[in-house]
Amino acid sequence: MKKIALDMDDVIADYVGKAIKTYEEEFDTKVDKSLMDGKKVWQIIPEEHAKVVRSFPYRAGFFRDLAIKPGARETIEELQQKYEVFIVTAAMEFPGSFLDKYEWIKEYLPNFSWRNLVFCGHKHIIDADYLVDDHDKNLNTFTSGEPILFSAPHNTHLDCYRRFDNWQDLHDYFL
Amino acid sequence: MKKIALDMDDVIADYVGKAIKTYEEEFDTKVDKSLMDGKKVWQIIPEEHAKVVRSFPYRAGFFRDLAIKPGARETIEELQQKYEVFIVTAAMEFPGSFLDKYEWIKEYLPNFSWRNLVFCGHKHIIDADYLVDDHDKNLNTFTSGEPILFSAPHNTHLDCYRRFDNWQDLHDYFL
Repeated sequence: MKKIALDMDDVIADYVGKAIKTYEEEFDTKVDKSLMDGKKVWQIIPEEHAKVVRSFPYRAGFFRDLAIKPGARETIEELQQKYEVFIVTAAMEFPGSFLDKYEWIKEYLPNFSWRNLVFCGHKHIIDADYLVDDHDKNLNTFTSGEPILFSAPHNTHLDCYRRFDNWQDLHDYFL
Repeated sequence: MKKIALDMDDVIADYVGKAIKTYEEEFDTKVDKSLMDGKKVWQIIPEEHAKVVRSFPYRAGFFRDLAIKPGARETIEELQQKYEVFIVTAAMEFPGSFLDKYEWIKEYLPNFSWRNLVFCGHKHIIDADYLVDDHDKNLNTFTSGEPILFSAPHNTHLDCYRRFDNWQDLHDYFL
């Protein structure tokens, strides 16, 4: 069976969506999403707010209630019939997120085995036929298979990878 | 740089040693180590004790104070001059161990980067030139590089891999 490695944040779970919502609520403001092309939230807001937004992933529980991307659960369950599916997330950067991520997967993907879950830093240690990720830094060092970009506001400018805009694209390509 | 993936328990950290010590203390008994060839601790003790010993890895803090194997720290620091060194541990089986393992590495290998730490289940997702591990089940599915067995009581009967008896053997082979 071919191996598909799926990134978690902004591929399966909607990290950017929660970051925007949390920022808007805490600062009683609105993010101008038209400015987000090629940028992260913290890069288009006042500097004094940016520090707070950059600290979100260090907050206990922040990763626990991210929304699941539309179509992700159904597609992953279909993929598992034909591929070995792994979730590979750079959780090591935020050790406080370990249990939140683990519990999130148990809740949102209840049939997903812990055996296929990977918390790492560098992703060039991953041996898979495909890596689907929203970050250039992970894709450009991935040499064991095909790197595929999953669209997120911060990567709209990249054009050096196959791109999936959403889970329908992913479904069409693999299934 | 070539990549070396090192298992954590019973390669870098002395899991079996703590399991024996904890069992002996709690049951006021002595393990007959001569019976351990090819076996785990719980396989050579009374059945009613085995259940407790098998629950050790689920205890909060159990992995936090394992002893480091003699020579491991110094050799890892030397290896890092010539290789990309990763620690790859099947922590997913024991989610309660995530932070213990992370903190253990910060304490015992303070220069080791989180970027090179991997918590996983199946290790055939690992792309490395070498995997040093004490478990047959991890080595026999590792196809991207050379699987190397690190001696532990439970693997004395295996003869299908290159074998390191200790960190001096590992040092001699790689350095």
